[in-house]
Amino acid sequence: MAKEKKLVEEITSRDEDFAKWYTDIVKKAELIEYSGVKGCMVIRPYGYAIWENIQRLLDKRFKDTGHENVYMPMFIPESLLNKEKDHVVGFAPEVAWVTHGGSEELAERLCVRPTSETLFCEHYSNIIKSYRDLPKLYNQWCSVVRWEKTTRPFLRSREFLWQEGHTIHATAEEAIHETEQMLDVYADFCAEDLNMPVIKGKKTESDKFAGAVSTYCIEALMHDGKALQAGTTHYFGDGFAKAFDITFTDKDNTFKHPHQSSWGVSTRLIGGIIMAHGDDSGLVLPPNIAPIQVVIIPVAQHKEGVLDKARGLESQLKSAGFRVKLDDSDNSAGWKFAEYEMKGVPLRLEIGPKDIEQNQCVIVRRDLTKDDEGKKSFINLDDLEQSVSRLLGALSKGLYEKCLANIEARTYTCGNIDEIIDVLSKNGDGFVKAMWCGSEDCEDEVKEKTGVGSRCIPIEQPEGGKTNQAYACVCCGKPAEILVYWGKAY
Amino acid sequence: MAKEKKLVEEITSRDEDFAKWYTDIVKKAELIEYSGVKGCMVIRPYGYAIWENIQRLLDKRFKDTGHENVYMPMFIPESLLNKEKDHVVGFAPEVAWVTHGGSEELAERLCVRPTSETLFCEHYSNIIKSYRDLPKLYNQWCSVVRWEKTTRPFLRSREFLWQEGHTIHATAEEAIHETEQMLDVYADFCAEDLNMPVIKGKKTESDKFAGAVSTYCIEALMHDGKALQAGTTHYFGDGFAKAFDITFTDKDNTFKHPHQSSWGVSTRLIGGIIMAHGDDSGLVLPPNIAPIQVVIIPVAQHKEGVLDKARGLESQLKSAGFRVKLDDSDNSAGWKFAEYEMKGVPLRLEIGPKDIEQNQCVIVRRDLTKDDEGKKSFINLDDLEQSVSRLLGALSKGLYEKCLANIEARTYTCGNIDEIIDVLSKNGDGFVKAMWCGSEDCEDEVKEKTGVGSRCIPIEQPEGGKTNQAYACVCCGKPAEILVYWGKAY
Repeated sequence: MAKEKKLVEEITSRDEDFAKWYTDIVKKAELIEYSGVKGCMVIRPYGYAIWENIQRLLDKRFKDTGHENVYMPMFIPESLLNKEKDHVVGFAPEVAWVTHGGSEELAERLCVRPTSETLFCEHYSNIIKSYRDLPKLYNQWCSVVRWEKTTRPFLRSREFLWQEGHTIHATAEEAIHETEQMLDVYADFCAEDLNMPVIKGKKTESDKFAGAVSTYCIEALMHDGKALQAGTTHYFGDGFAKAFDITFTDKDNTFKHPHQSSWGVSTRLIGGIIMAHGDDSGLVLPPNIAPIQVVIIPVAQHKEGVLDKARGLESQLKSAGFRVKLDDSDNSAGWKFAEYEMKGVPLRLEIGPKDIEQNQCVIVRRDLTKDDEGKKSFINLDDLEQSVSRLLGALSKGLYEKCLANIEARTYTCGNIDEIIDVLSKNGDGFVKAMWCGSEDCEDEVKEKTGVGSRCIPIEQPEGGKTNQAYACVCCGKPAEILVYWGKAY
Repeated sequence: MAKEKKLVEEITSRDEDFAKWYTDIVKKAELIEYSGVKGCMVIRPYGYAIWENIQRLLDKRFKDTGHENVYMPMFIPESLLNKEKDHVVGFAPEVAWVTHGGSEELAERLCVRPTSETLFCEHYSNIIKSYRDLPKLYNQWCSVVRWEKTTRPFLRSREFLWQEGHTIHATAEEAIHETEQMLDVYADFCAEDLNMPVIKGKKTESDKFAGAVSTYCIEALMHDGKALQAGTTHYFGDGFAKAFDITFTDKDNTFKHPHQSSWGVSTRLIGGIIMAHGDDSGLVLPPNIAPIQVVIIPVAQHKEGVLDKARGLESQLKSAGFRVKLDDSDNSAGWKFAEYEMKGVPLRLEIGPKDIEQNQCVIVRRDLTKDDEGKKSFINLDDLEQSVSRLLGALSKGLYEKCLANIEARTYTCGNIDEIIDVLSKNGDGFVKAMWCGSEDCEDEVKEKTGVGSRCIPIEQPEGGKTNQAYACVCCGKPAEILVYWGKAY
């Protein structure tokens, strides 16, 4: 038992040091390894398999809503990056510059894409002539580079994997609809596939994407009460189209500028899953994105018939479409239990000689504690597939509800700055719901005095301003119509 | 009819100017568009969809042979690139260098990966301690950068998409077996999924990958008689392991260096498909990787019931798992015929009022000419799925056989340099089979005098040196045991 004890002991507990717990998990669950390039990580097979599942599920959602994948160059000439003024101001300070090709100095520096609006705009200016060419609903899966000063695996790294949608439309209405639609796609994906409820909202002016007319976001709440921006969608109006000289002949035979959107989520989602669902025994993975949904652990595997039966169950569950792993290594059962708990495998199936005699197996849910009802079930092998399916469904639902309960327990309604300071000092971090007059000075003052910034203006606003909140701005006390979620963020 | 005529007229014919024909195809079939960065291309939706199919089919083959996907950083510190001497000599002259992050100059230059052996080695040195950690069978899908002077879409670009397998094993035998196994995986994929037969062989010493003990390759022959290196696998011995200080404790409790392999194919395969199968009407795509396998063209679509029937067939074929597109746009049927011929869609299904009356449709095969038997079939709608499946299968087989016939017709056996010059001047480019003594001087001399270089030493060597070939080296006339395929290459 020494080995498995050690495995668990090596993880810092969440309440002791959440940041250290996080770093322990990403390493011990073998999601990443550090590389020799500061701020760049190696995504290991288990971590990458999670990303592959995220990609597969999101890509289907994108294609079902009419999007097509493309691939743009990874380099952006400096002059191209400079074309849209707000955009270059936002990104130029944090890009990596290529100055030499082989031994020759380049005539013009190239930056490694931090995002690809400029490249898509250049392409659109080449291929769009008429309203018949619109809309273009493109998406790209790639890596991007941002030269961050402080980095953390998945949450903030100098290179990260993501998808970036870039769409272009004949009218503003269509582009805005796209921006809102993709926010819904992201929120549904987070809820259904990551079992992580999110708040849908709009960023304040000061927090918009560089070059956007408006930026929408989904905000999740982590176990420690800090918010995680899990995805964003941007409406650009025709600002980029004007800067890049993209025009089309409309049905009325006049030249017009099209309207654009972009939207993205990244490997940051994996950081979100870890911090939303993980516990002191390790990762807890939502079934839809878990690389292994069921791990089969033979008990007393040296006894006749045990391994054969375990292999039979493995192939039975695989045929039924589940992602299954049989661990028939010579490690102790206890070591295996700890290992797959660390890796967050949703269900553990134990099968031993006595189970076989009784035509049953034991299934243990990763998300529940031993005091919870339903943690451990004895399953009749005649109902195996249905039972696994039911338990995975229950686990998904359980994760979602636990996450939602965390948001509800940690969302505080405040009427003034003192209340914010007070409630956070008593309860720890969380979302603060408070009214705001809309002035950037007030937004800054709240941040300065309380340490919490505006996360988003939620889509669901109080009707006609009548709510439990005060009608007054949480900062200046003047009349306020806008409800804002405030909080500390990753 | 003016429009579709024009569409076809715009393509240069293959025999007139093969290079121009190729460029016309990649643009007119909307596979790529040029970008503002010299040598980097935009892969458009239709081109990227081909790549997605290639990825899906190859990825399954990799996973079925036990490989896992990972993701390494895109940057390699200069000191890391320099660790293996032959490797750095091979790649340093053609890498892109990042020298600045934001406004700060980096303490050490980073190159954008041209290939990732060095990164995998660094990672392996961190995670491998014992024989229990071996083998690692890793693969990565990513883009790489090589600062080429002359570039052509898909065939040679400064950035391209590929996969790179990197494996590490306890013994040389295992690593060599892996190298050979992956060559077979590639060759089978080319034959079955791309319908493009290839010659499996080994590179000569002068043509090996930088740092490899031996390099294997698959060589395809294009319509114009030039060869295309379609994929390579490399055996590294323990050279990289020594340079990167990777050691493991073996079962006998001694420290050993593991043995490594790497292997890759890239978007170059798309160039191969174009030049192996395309004709003067455009692309011809193998069914397994075609984004659209069947295009449905309604005839007299304004007549009652035609569009409804066409939509019914579309959903019927989609449900059966085929990739189908219904073109119900208001372009003429003739224009549509030319458009989907250009795009290489394997089967065209025509359905009009008379067909509906007779419970049939017309299916036209893209690969055959109008004089070929089987070009056009009348298909009873009760047998639609089976007929489509049969015709796609016949088309796959037809493409493969046509390609194989091209190799056979264009493979010449020569006994001396004059024969090579003579046969090529009479017949045009192709493979030259000729014996070689193994000296690099002879290899160079053949290239210099005939213009054809060594492509590979085929795995299938003549038994005991007794063949139709002369027993003498094609260059020096001395005794020769090695059969070599020579040819011009892309």
